[in-house]
Amino acid sequence: MSSMTASATLKSRVRFAPYLQKLHSPEECVKYFKNNDYVGWSGFTGVGGPKVVPNALAAYVEANNLKGKMGFNLFVGASADVNVESKWADLNMLKRRAPHQVGKPIAKAINEGRTQFFDKHLSMFPQDLTYGYYTLNKATDTLDTVIIEATAITEDGHLIPGPAVGATPELVSMADKIIIEVNTLLPNCEGIHDINMPINPPFRQPYQLTNPSQRIGLPYVTLDPSKVVAIVESQQADAVGKNTPADDMSKSIANNLIEFLEQEVKAGRMPENLHPLQSGIGNIANAVVEGLASSNFKNLSVWTEVLQDSFLDFFESGKLDHATSTSMRLTPEGFERFHKNWEEYSSKLLLRSQVVSNSPEIIRRLGVIAMNTPVEVDIYAHANSTNVNGSRMLNGLGGSADFLRNAKLSVMHTPSTRPTKTDPHGITCIVPFATHVDQTEHDLDVVVTEQGLADLRGLAPRERARVIIDKCAHPIYKPILLEYLERAEFYCTKNKSLHEPHILRDAFKLQANLEDKGTMRIDSW
Amino acid sequence: MSSMTASATLKSRVRFAPYLQKLHSPEECVKYFKNNDYVGWSGFTGVGGPKVVPNALAAYVEANNLKGKMGFNLFVGASADVNVESKWADLNMLKRRAPHQVGKPIAKAINEGRTQFFDKHLSMFPQDLTYGYYTLNKATDTLDTVIIEATAITEDGHLIPGPAVGATPELVSMADKIIIEVNTLLPNCEGIHDINMPINPPFRQPYQLTNPSQRIGLPYVTLDPSKVVAIVESQQADAVGKNTPADDMSKSIANNLIEFLEQEVKAGRMPENLHPLQSGIGNIANAVVEGLASSNFKNLSVWTEVLQDSFLDFFESGKLDHATSTSMRLTPEGFERFHKNWEEYSSKLLLRSQVVSNSPEIIRRLGVIAMNTPVEVDIYAHANSTNVNGSRMLNGLGGSADFLRNAKLSVMHTPSTRPTKTDPHGITCIVPFATHVDQTEHDLDVVVTEQGLADLRGLAPRERARVIIDKCAHPIYKPILLEYLERAEFYCTKNKSLHEPHILRDAFKLQANLEDKGTMRIDSW
Repeated sequence: MSSMTASATLKSRVRFAPYLQKLHSPEECVKYFKNNDYVGWSGFTGVGGPKVVPNALAAYVEANNLKGKMGFNLFVGASADVNVESKWADLNMLKRRAPHQVGKPIAKAINEGRTQFFDKHLSMFPQDLTYGYYTLNKATDTLDTVIIEATAITEDGHLIPGPAVGATPELVSMADKIIIEVNTLLPNCEGIHDINMPINPPFRQPYQLTNPSQRIGLPYVTLDPSKVVAIVESQQADAVGKNTPADDMSKSIANNLIEFLEQEVKAGRMPENLHPLQSGIGNIANAVVEGLASSNFKNLSVWTEVLQDSFLDFFESGKLDHATSTSMRLTPEGFERFHKNWEEYSSKLLLRSQVVSNSPEIIRRLGVIAMNTPVEVDIYAHANSTNVNGSRMLNGLGGSADFLRNAKLSVMHTPSTRPTKTDPHGITCIVPFATHVDQTEHDLDVVVTEQGLADLRGLAPRERARVIIDKCAHPIYKPILLEYLERAEFYCTKNKSLHEPHILRDAFKLQANLEDKGTMRIDSW
Repeated sequence: MSSMTASATLKSRVRFAPYLQKLHSPEECVKYFKNNDYVGWSGFTGVGGPKVVPNALAAYVEANNLKGKMGFNLFVGASADVNVESKWADLNMLKRRAPHQVGKPIAKAINEGRTQFFDKHLSMFPQDLTYGYYTLNKATDTLDTVIIEATAITEDGHLIPGPAVGATPELVSMADKIIIEVNTLLPNCEGIHDINMPINPPFRQPYQLTNPSQRIGLPYVTLDPSKVVAIVESQQADAVGKNTPADDMSKSIANNLIEFLEQEVKAGRMPENLHPLQSGIGNIANAVVEGLASSNFKNLSVWTEVLQDSFLDFFESGKLDHATSTSMRLTPEGFERFHKNWEEYSSKLLLRSQVVSNSPEIIRRLGVIAMNTPVEVDIYAHANSTNVNGSRMLNGLGGSADFLRNAKLSVMHTPSTRPTKTDPHGITCIVPFATHVDQTEHDLDVVVTEQGLADLRGLAPRERARVIIDKCAHPIYKPILLEYLERAEFYCTKNKSLHEPHILRDAFKLQANLEDKGTMRIDSW
């Protein structure tokens, strides 16, 4: 039992008195962790996760020279707070990590082989956790300790999350011990969540949702109060950097895409207010949102996994009626803006668990328009979302495949090239053969770059290849890619394998050239 | 108007009198087709499709030297009758074809570049058709002519299908003209269907189904009778060859898998009667079904896309309570058996549209156990289901990815090797890098061969690789694969890209060796 006393603010937030008896300092929570524990954190896309307790643990490891001697199997809905997780990665506190991460130190730990990382569809990760699939080598099908950030606690001891729901419902249902960080810097976020607790087969029910704005859950996360071992007050903000602004390249991509959507409406394949939109993170996504906010479309809705500051402008443009996601990754300024217009925004926005936001069931039913940025796309429309040169992990799969597989319209948007140190167009994002495949040729409808848009619907592979090269590839790489295709067609005509022509010996020649000469511009095939 | 008169059997089957005024001979239907038409056929996995009208068209093309001058864009739920489609392929009547096919002539036409073929998830193909995605280059969003096999017609002119539902609901909803082949050789199959007509976003509703045996649709396919231009009587049986019997290899695979399922039940991760099973076509699938029928499991259920003769034994073993699929691919003997025990079987079986049988929504809700056979699986658990050496099309994706992506347990079963002309183990089905990816590393839980079973759940890529090589690879290829992995780890340690180690220059070396020397047994890396 701690000797701490609760602040007035904390008392007002924690409406379940027994928890106040469990008040701890972050440092006092260290005792709940031991080497090799299975640990869960709330949070998604870097927000809504615990900060002060993990930081106290990192400080403890550092102060006691426990680097390499105190490591964990860490499960978070998606990426954790970048500063907090970076500390853990630097201190080798991440033995195993799933399913998504952001930050140089954690990527370094993974790519140096210090952290065993696996990425899984974000809709499936929480359910596989509750199936016991990630605790196969443990004596019990539980997580030892789960740390959750909340902005308030209900009269029954249930959790009001902050800016993310993510996998919190599943994590608390799997926990032996729960530690709650009550963040009193954030406003009480009560009312903006719509939360479904996990129910596994054969008892699972349909999600009775046919409209993005519908409520189908509870405004809080239910949990067993007897599992709560500690309550900690936190006043630490999430580390959210500035949004990447749109540039000319991303604006060109957005324009190509918006023009296409206008044509789809004209052709009667989309309603005038489109279908619910899913959009990712990054400057292309921001350019698309900005483009839609200044378009002629009206009464739009958003069904996505993460909202950023650009959505505040989107709301203010009057074009966006409703948005739902599992996280709001707002900058401190964005959160301030949101807080000031709480009444308005909170009536137009819902945060759901990631199992729901990324649900194939709902994405397919609603006919979502999904838009994502890959590492590369190949000429037949396989896309790599995760591993540079097939091996070096960036951030993980995320929800890309949940959305792209199930959307009514699946869009990959990418610049046609990226620079290397010696060549401003050293890397073509349209390649002969994707070095890693996360989205298959069966999943994508549209590929769009600043050069143009390839509509792949109903096309056979060789037709697709010609359209992608013609519309999307950079002029520097067009002849290189076309020559590959023609040589492969010649080779496969001979071999009677002309469905999807490849010359496997040459498939990765651009990557070899990049390694040897710093550019994918080969001299010849 | 035809001068034909209806037989007594036909009259008893067609309970909507106006259709009997439209009676045609197959030959009389030729006039409804012209070069370049968009045509749809009923059928799925080679059964339930039209036969006499397509055969009459083929005869017409042949008799009038129209080979190459009368071709179609043909859409079928999956594969059509192999004899019928083979004729069309030989006569170059297939300009475009989707999404699945079986038979040497059609594979030849695709791999020689005469037929533009594309494969799409079978759950998505019909909806993309109704979205207008496959008629983008046509003046109207419709199919010119759709030919449907029925076993009866209701009083309102609606269709009672035969042994397959497939994409019939979507095809008839898209048709300008409908021709109905009433098959009077088959029994009237009334009662075994449960059919949902297509409803597109934003109006689509949840499938209110929480148990495989539940009815959520109608016992017939509704259509607009004014679109029916012809009724044709058919007495032609589907061409269904004998099932591939289980052999020692497939029995070993089945035993490994059933042992694993028993362990899952013991560990509490599966109920005693498992979850609904999905199983494909082929000798491994048959061995699994036979193994389950003689196992200790009871009260099993099946949620799949196709049932074969082996399921009749499964029913008779008393282990199987209920089965549902979109097609019954029975041999003539199997159909006879089914017919004789109609009362019993028809109370335990439902045929649904493929959008429902392959629905991610339902597969995920029910927690299906999905089992499929690939061309190859790589050491990190990407699987190729479609293209030999990345280029040569076999049959198409089918529903493999619908099931493997969404199942509670996703299993790939394959022999560890296949023979070449000169080497009985010339091809390893466990390869360093899949030459085509249809199922990603994020989709598979288990890989099993006759050598053993690799449980991949919760493992990082390098862990997965070691388990797959250790448990699944053939002893001849274990050292070859392990050396690739170790060399790749060395190379990627240097490059700090150790998440999923590859040496792209060597990734397809086994395939090159196969081409040069007739075996994948390389002498050295």
